[in-house]
Parts: sequence; structure tokens; C-alpha cells
Amino acid sequence: MDSHDLVVVAGRRLPRVDEVLDGWFEVAAARAGRFGSRYVHIIESLRRNTAGGKRFRPRMVLAAYESLGGTDIDVAARVAAAYELLHTALIVHDDVIDRDFVRRGRPNVSGSYRDRATTAGIPLPLAEHRGMSVAVVAGDLALAGAYRLVDEAGADELTRGRLIEILDDAVSAAAAGEYADVDFSLHVEMPSVDDIVEMERLKTAWYSFEAPLQAGAVLAGASLPTIDALGVFGRNIGIAYQIVDDVLGVFGEEGVTGKSSVGDLREGKRTVLIAHAATRPEWNTVRGLFGDPALDDDGAARLRDAIAASGARTFAELLAADYANRAWEALADGAVPASTRDELAPVVRAVLERTR
Amino acid sequence: MDSHDLVVVAGRRLPRVDEVLDGWFEVAAARAGRFGSRYVHIIESLRRNTAGGKRFRPRMVLAAYESLGGTDIDVAARVAAAYELLHTALIVHDDVIDRDFVRRGRPNVSGSYRDRATTAGIPLPLAEHRGMSVAVVAGDLALAGAYRLVDEAGADELTRGRLIEILDDAVSAAAAGEYADVDFSLHVEMPSVDDIVEMERLKTAWYSFEAPLQAGAVLAGASLPTIDALGVFGRNIGIAYQIVDDVLGVFGEEGVTGKSSVGDLREGKRTVLIAHAATRPEWNTVRGLFGDPALDDDGAARLRDAIAASGARTFAELLAADYANRAWEALADGAVPASTRDELAPVVRAVLERTR
Repeated sequence: MDSHDLVVVAGRRLPRVDEVLDGWFEVAAARAGRFGSRYVHIIESLRRNTAGGKRFRPRMVLAAYESLGGTDIDVAARVAAAYELLHTALIVHDDVIDRDFVRRGRPNVSGSYRDRATTAGIPLPLAEHRGMSVAVVAGDLALAGAYRLVDEAGADELTRGRLIEILDDAVSAAAAGEYADVDFSLHVEMPSVDDIVEMERLKTAWYSFEAPLQAGAVLAGASLPTIDALGVFGRNIGIAYQIVDDVLGVFGEEGVTGKSSVGDLREGKRTVLIAHAATRPEWNTVRGLFGDPALDDDGAARLRDAIAASGARTFAELLAADYANRAWEALADGAVPASTRDELAPVVRAVLERTR
Repeated sequence: MDSHDLVVVAGRRLPRVDEVLDGWFEVAAARAGRFGSRYVHIIESLRRNTAGGKRFRPRMVLAAYESLGGTDIDVAARVAAAYELLHTALIVHDDVIDRDFVRRGRPNVSGSYRDRATTAGIPLPLAEHRGMSVAVVAGDLALAGAYRLVDEAGADELTRGRLIEILDDAVSAAAAGEYADVDFSLHVEMPSVDDIVEMERLKTAWYSFEAPLQAGAVLAGASLPTIDALGVFGRNIGIAYQIVDDVLGVFGEEGVTGKSSVGDLREGKRTVLIAHAATRPEWNTVRGLFGDPALDDDGAARLRDAIAASGARTFAELLAADYANRAWEALADGAVPASTRDELAPVVRAVLERTR
């Protein structure tokens, strides 16, 4: 998930989050130094992978926290930073699972260690395996860091317990979503639209939207109905966001989205868009192109035309809008104060604009 | 590391640890159930991988805690269980890194999912990848569980912070050790004996001995000199244990150790034994056999003879005894009460007996 259009939210406090992350990386590097100098590279590699992100999950924590009246920015920044480290952990491990060595056009953790190994004369398969091994370890460190940051955020005992519970649920949801995703990729049959929506909710929306919003609300001392409403908001806007992301993955302009619009088709990524298209007669003529590692631009254009002609693009855009509307509804809940509605409304608008 | 001869320690309280682990697995399974029925399999698979172990790390926590006067068995059992879950997480991820699908003669997490996938008609390379993907996720859940258990152990605020610090250090040490181990395996040159001792300390001894002993001591409210002495004890006995384990991996009787004595030689496992042998002229004649995937019993016997003739076996056994003696010395420290010395002495004896 990319989020360059959601950077309108809660930006003012982000420097504090980066300070917390810097602090965590410095402590981790100092600890690593005690274990030998080579090992510091893992921390540096994690740090590079965390740098320059849009801090989308921290924004959700801070938006909920501050709009609900929270004033202890130090505590909130630590919880916010925990969700950024969780994100780092999950994408590093997701890249291992997807055998990806590149993220956003640059080598990821696996990629940089693969490259170090090939430079040292290690043959490619071994070098790739080394990259993935280091990434398994690096992801573990980031995951441990997320727990540590929540643990030491400085919240009172009861709040801390609830924050850890929310974090735990988010980790489990992401694991369940990853499991479902791996499962889909092994079967010839296309999963249903509902199965894909559920997978995307678990794998990404939960830890990216629901959990950080609820963590910010709990930290601000919000009431249960408010926390619940933010959960419903987060779930629905998160699903909407993922559906739009999948549509852009196929129909987005590369110059605007910054990523190839052939990649998802070439790797056979199972999305709402494709699940719907696969139920239509137009799919029969292009079925063989989908997931073909040798797919070229012409083939991709034929696939895109068939998907559009089948009505799947429109279906996916309407489905995203439907989830965005449910997110609006959750914001309209009486338990959500106007300040929070104002803070989060741009998120919905940003997602809806992406559907156009 | 196997530990069937160290089960003399702190066995009385282990049923409480198993109750805590059962509780964690039940909560995890209930949570998983909310995410869909299939996903419960990951928890079941983790549970199978955790069942039947010797609970060696929990024993260390409890031995330190009770012998230092701790009486709140519920708190101690939760911290002890955390170290068992950490062990599960690390071996599940270590198996991913080593591409192992079997542990102790039975399918591990990767292996059981690979087998499910092949049964469902998935071709082997894809099925193996699926198994490893699920194991990445499963290890994450166990690691998160370890943090959660320490967090909710019920220790006071200050103690909890110190316990999390010890856990964090253990995770980082294991990561650094795994990193070093991956690094060794990629190079043609044999690492030095010192490098291997350091790797084994970081990868296994720290989280298996040092950290659980110190956690038990901190929880019991021990003084810093006592905690330090137990750390020194744990480090040295842990290293001794690993060296003996490596000797047994090559010279142990399969009927006694329960594992093949060809496996380590066939996979080219770099140990103190081998690092020393490789510096001796006897190695030249057998060098080509070491790490040969096709190594047979005759070849293994030739390698064993050369290692023994080179003096490496004696060297490794003396080195283990030396570390065990340092462990004795740490126990003799005035800061270690007699009750703790009595509780831990059998550990040293068990390790020394293994050297014979």
C-alpha cells in the first residue's frame, strides 16, 4: 500500500515520531555493536527500509489521539512509532514470503544482503538465500521493537494492557491475512470477491487503519463506543483503500502511481478486480495471460481491456466507494466528536478521489 | 540443542508452565477462530511444535527464581513460558533459514504445511515455499507471544521493564548469532574457534541460559552482583553445552543422542570441533568429504577418524570442560546463595558428564 495522497493527516507531530524511531534505531545499533561490528548492518538496513516512508500508521494514531483530546505527545509518539516498526516488520517478512528483493525501486533488506553477498563472490541462489535469512532476522527485531515501544510508551498499567491487546490482535490479523494470501496463490481456482476483501482486511487494513486508530483512541481515554466507531471506520476505509490500490495496480498511470502497472498482472496477484473479472465471459479469452511471467505490454493492454469490458473495473470502483461510504457512516456516529470527524474526513476524501 | 539430561532441574513447577502455555495457545486459537477457521491450523501447528519439549529454558527461569527465594509461582511460570515461546519462535525461523522441514524426526511447521500442500496436489517447490511462508508467520506469532507473556506476567512496573530489557537483549543476541551463522555458511574459509564460540553464545546460549537465569533472578528481587554472577554462569555453561552438543553431533551414538551422526558432517556444519580440525594436517585428506551432500557412512567414518586423529575431539572436550569450570567459578561467587548453587550444580555436572 502506498499512501502519498493521505499525507494531509496529522503531519505536525510526525517529527516527534521520527525522533522516537531514531532513538530506537540508535539503541538497537548500540546493542548490536556489543555483539560485533558486522551485525550493526542489520539495524542500518532496517533503518534504511523505515526511512522516507509516509508514516501513514503513525498519522492514524496521532489523528485519533489528538482529535480526541490527548495532549501527551511523547506517549502518543512512542505508540505511533510502534506501528511504523510493526509495518517495517511485516513488509520485511512479506518480502521474504513473496521472494521480493526490491521495494519502491530500491533493494529491500533481502536485496541489500543479496547484493553484498554477490559482490563478495557468492553465487546468486546462495546470495538470495542469505538475503532472505537476514530479512527473517531483521523482521523479528522490528517486531520485537514494536512491542517494546508500546510497552515503554509511558501509559498507565490498564491502558498499556489494552494497547498491547490491540497490537497483538493486529499482529494476529496480519498473520491470518498473510496465511490466506499464501493459500490463494497456491490454488488454481480464483477466490471469491468476499474472500479477497477479508484477506485484504486482515493482511493490511487491520494493522494500518483499525489498530492504530483504536490505539490512539484508547490512549486518549476515549469511551468504548468511540473506540468501536473508529474501529469500524478504520476497517471500512482500509478495505476501500486496498481495493483502490489494486485497481491502480492495473489501471494506474505509472508516472502518477510510481509503480509498474504490469507487475500485478504478471505475478497473477489475486485482487477484487481480478476475482470479479474471472467470473465474466470476457475473461476466457485472456485467462492465459494472467500470471504469465513473460507478460509484455501488449498482453497487459489486452488483459486491461478485457477486465474493463467485463465491468470488473467499475465493479471494484463501486465496491471501494461503498466501503468508503460505510466509513463515512462510522464517522457520523454520535460517539465520534466533531474534532475527530474533521481530522479523519480528508482520509475518506483522499480514498474516494483515488477511485475517480 | 537437546537437553534430555538436564531435566533434573526445577521439574516440580513445570506443570504450571505448561498450564500457562496451554492458556496462551487457547487464547491464540480463539483469536484465530475470529479470523476464519483455516487460520487456527497455524496455532495448532505451533502448539505441536511446542509440545513435548524438555522445557529447558523455563527450568532455568524457575531454578533461579525459586532458589533465590521467589514465591509467586504464577508470575514466574508466565515469564518461564515466555522463554519457551521465544525458543519456539527462534527454532521455527531458524528452520526457515536452514530450509529444514523436519525437527526431531517429525515435520516441523514448514514441513507440515508443505505436506498439506503436496497432499492438495501442489508441486513440491511451491509446497515447500508455502511451508516456509507459513513458518515465517508462525514464528512471528510465537515471538509476539513471548513479549505478551512477560508483559502480562504480573511483575511490578520496574521489574517488568527490566524483564523486557532482558528479553530484548536475548532476541537481539539470537539475531546476531543467526546472522553470524548465515555469514559463516557462505564463506569457503573456516571461521576461527573463537568466532564459532561467539556465534554459539549469541545464537543459543544467551537466550537459553543467560537470559532465563537472569530473568528468574530479577523476578526474585536478587541483587545486581547475584544477577551478574548468574549471567556469567549461564554464558559459560551455555557455551560448554553447545560445544558438547557439537561433539555429540559427530561422535555421539545415534541410539543415545537420538539424532544422526552423519547429518552435521553432511551439511558442513561449522563447529568448534571442525574449526580446530581444519587447522591440522589430517584435515587435508578428508576436506572434500566435509559438507558433501552425498556423504555416506564410510565417508563419515573417515572424517570422524581424521577429526579424532587431529586432536580436535580432545581439544573440543577440553574446551567444553574449561567453560564448565568457569561456570563453576561463577557459582562459587559469594553473591550466589547456597540454595542457588545447589539447584544449578546438576546442570554443570550434566554438561561435564556429556563430555565423557
